[in-house]
Amino acid sequence: MSLLVVGSVAFDALETPFGKVERTVGGAATYFSVAASFFTHVSLVGVVGDDFTAEDAAVFKGRRIDISGLERAQGKTFFWAGRYGIDPNDRVTLATELNVFSTFRPQIPERFRKSKHIFLANIDPTLQRSVLKQIDGQPHIVGLDTMNYWIESTPAELREILRHTDVLMINDSETRMLANEHNLLRAAREIFKLGPTTLVIKRGEHGALLVHKDWVFAVPALPLEEVHDPTGAGDSFGGGFMGYLASVPRLTDAALRRAMVYGSVMGSFAVEQFGVDGIKSLTRERIDDRYAEFRRLTHFD
Amino acid sequence: MSLLVVGSVAFDALETPFGKVERTVGGAATYFSVAASFFTHVSLVGVVGDDFTAEDAAVFKGRRIDISGLERAQGKTFFWAGRYGIDPNDRVTLATELNVFSTFRPQIPERFRKSKHIFLANIDPTLQRSVLKQIDGQPHIVGLDTMNYWIESTPAELREILRHTDVLMINDSETRMLANEHNLLRAAREIFKLGPTTLVIKRGEHGALLVHKDWVFAVPALPLEEVHDPTGAGDSFGGGFMGYLASVPRLTDAALRRAMVYGSVMGSFAVEQFGVDGIKSLTRERIDDRYAEFRRLTHFD
Repeated sequence: MSLLVVGSVAFDALETPFGKVERTVGGAATYFSVAASFFTHVSLVGVVGDDFTAEDAAVFKGRRIDISGLERAQGKTFFWAGRYGIDPNDRVTLATELNVFSTFRPQIPERFRKSKHIFLANIDPTLQRSVLKQIDGQPHIVGLDTMNYWIESTPAELREILRHTDVLMINDSETRMLANEHNLLRAAREIFKLGPTTLVIKRGEHGALLVHKDWVFAVPALPLEEVHDPTGAGDSFGGGFMGYLASVPRLTDAALRRAMVYGSVMGSFAVEQFGVDGIKSLTRERIDDRYAEFRRLTHFD
Repeated sequence: MSLLVVGSVAFDALETPFGKVERTVGGAATYFSVAASFFTHVSLVGVVGDDFTAEDAAVFKGRRIDISGLERAQGKTFFWAGRYGIDPNDRVTLATELNVFSTFRPQIPERFRKSKHIFLANIDPTLQRSVLKQIDGQPHIVGLDTMNYWIESTPAELREILRHTDVLMINDSETRMLANEHNLLRAAREIFKLGPTTLVIKRGEHGALLVHKDWVFAVPALPLEEVHDPTGAGDSFGGGFMGYLASVPRLTDAALRRAMVYGSVMGSFAVEQFGVDGIKSLTRERIDDRYAEFRRLTHFD
């Protein structure tokens, strides 16, 4: 059974100290599904405009990604433009044009409705909820991303979808905002009351932290010489994490730990090049080599 | 052979969201030597004023710390006052009164001059250099801390002492400033040209990173429910790191990795309580239990 992801497919204009691209295919569901496809079959549900060409769709081709759920609507594709400083945390959003995304109402094709592994990328929590309502049966795992905007402006709707979420993947400031608590362990306990059993905190250049009811696991980021474009690092992490979990028979603690490392591996590749270039040409062998590099980075006797 | 540390012994006034102390014995050499004494014998060289009582000195008592090199000068002991916000990175220095520290000229007692393990805590690089000039023979390892003030105001003197330094222990912003390079791996390469063979980057709540010529090692910080006072965390880290290294027969890569973890262990205990309270009552058993906790935090199969 494949991994269902619902989220944005977009055109991005990106500027970093290392270069500039005017229009590249991005969006959370793009990074997520390309990353996850190295581990499992992916079913993508999203929307693009009539400006989205076959050439643009080529990024999904030749992979285990089913884009038959990628709706094509009249109008322009979601567009995002951003500029990063030498410190990748210094991000300026230059433009956010929702375009066809503003009226997106996710329709889950019949054949995806029995999906057991589901990732709801960062979109309106009401839409995230509508996706789950279309699912038949009980999923094994529902992962969810959100952001400060939804935490502040639609708290009730977010709480509703969190009741149906197993793994919440957000960053530290979102964790603190959602729980109204600075300490991350105490914040996690507040979040567990809302539904999730697992909190994955993405910390960019500081790695990632998984908090489970009874244990914690931390992965530092791999120090890299070349960080050319941080766009999509978090979504690539999500794809590696969920893709790996969808590929194993049982959701053990050991599998969750490995998923954290595979997520970190995919995030580390993502930032080394512009847009999806860092992950689109990978092989499972290179992924596993870098997995071993994470072991050398972190293990001691 | 014991571990020689030269640095400040101070009175601190500390204020955090969790409480307040008006006057507690602090200073880099205090945290360092208390932390290191769980691993090895420590020789402390520093200065205090005539206001430093036997009760104040009790923090060093009953430990493997020789304070016969702790000079007593006429005047007041170095005093520092600081306030931290709910985010421990929000630190405001309320007072820095150097007092007897302003005329401190470290004199290394004869019996400490053959020290093989030396840590030069954060003081004027000219004084750090004067310490090494008093050492007979070639030390096995010289560790050094410094700060943005010395990087900016005494760059030539700092470069001179760096030529004689094996392990430089600083934070990320100091690393970037010293190397004039944002990327930490490239910054490390610049720093290696100045003398050190090992760079230990202390990142507070984000853990610590060791960069060696041919390899890197990262330890995340242990997520803690109680972070009551970050004062001395970096110096406690240094004490655990250097203390462990002074206790092993050979400076292997594996020993450096374990030293990073013992440093992280001591830093994690330090922040849980005010001043030195977090580390002063430890046992080697509790230290090793937490070492095992770091293994559970970071290892995967």
